[in-house]
Amino acid sequence: MPDELHEPRLTNALRTLLRTQRIAALGTLGEDGAPFVSMVPFAVEPVSASLVIHVSGLAAHTRNLQAAPRVSLLVMQAERDGEPVHALPRVTLEGRAAVLVVDSAAWVDARRVYLARFPEAEPMTQLGDFRFVAVAVQGARQVAGFGAARSLDADAVARALRPAGQASGR
Amino acid sequence: MPDELHEPRLTNALRTLLRTQRIAALGTLGEDGAPFVSMVPFAVEPVSASLVIHVSGLAAHTRNLQAAPRVSLLVMQAERDGEPVHALPRVTLEGRAAVLVVDSAAWVDARRVYLARFPEAEPMTQLGDFRFVAVAVQGARQVAGFGAARSLDADAVARALRPAGQASGR
Repeated sequence: MPDELHEPRLTNALRTLLRTQRIAALGTLGEDGAPFVSMVPFAVEPVSASLVIHVSGLAAHTRNLQAAPRVSLLVMQAERDGEPVHALPRVTLEGRAAVLVVDSAAWVDARRVYLARFPEAEPMTQLGDFRFVAVAVQGARQVAGFGAARSLDADAVARALRPAGQASGR
Repeated sequence: MPDELHEPRLTNALRTLLRTQRIAALGTLGEDGAPFVSMVPFAVEPVSASLVIHVSGLAAHTRNLQAAPRVSLLVMQAERDGEPVHALPRVTLEGRAAVLVVDSAAWVDARRVYLARFPEAEPMTQLGDFRFVAVAVQGARQVAGFGAARSLDADAVARALRPAGQASGR
């Protein structure tokens, strides 16, 4: 089947994945040159087509992404007991991480979307060593099931990150 | 509380995590020097303290781990709708990946533990482009909840990968 027939369905599947799943596996480059994968709760900032994470300045992944901003984020549909896992919908987002300057416009947007999703994290934002980081998505590899995989460029990801029915912005 | 008081509880939590969760986020080093994270179903091979994965020779992560064998595997407890995610139990395993030679002793062991966990994957093992890969675990970072985190060396991970009550081997 030509890709264009798949695309609306795959884009809907990608939106559903990012709306329903709240944790991602963040891949950073370690000081030793090896990859390092850690769990991060994430929110979506649709205007800048970014994922927002909130990380401790004391954590290895934060040091890593400050030294090497190219990161990878995997979002997977959570597995369920007794159900097969090989075809679980998932997406790998490649992006560039930036630690946001406190009180900047980007920081205000990031904090807003993050706390809208995770109101329980508000006390952590009061801790001095936590930072908001935006990962600007530059491409993606989506697997929506057996035989349903595609690569997306930055524009296609940005369209998918915007809520359905909106041509641009929020 | 001293670490030694935590350890049996954390080791049990790690065993539970690896027994109940079947998918990991595999971090490999891409050809472009950036990390790449992808989903892999995994099984545990306790004798060699390895995780076993089954990957396509056509997939990016397979090319990556053949070129740069140091990899990272994150196993997270699956999130549940409506429940908080920040303290979800998880572990990052660092290891060295090796593509196993077909019909070698390690390959036979790997295939056995993988198909014991994923009998539905048997048809995929008939495809010529799939390989069994063992990731020998060399260390780990475990988070069992808020304030319950530790680093483990290779020996501590090996003890945790063995079934409870067994001093060594299977």
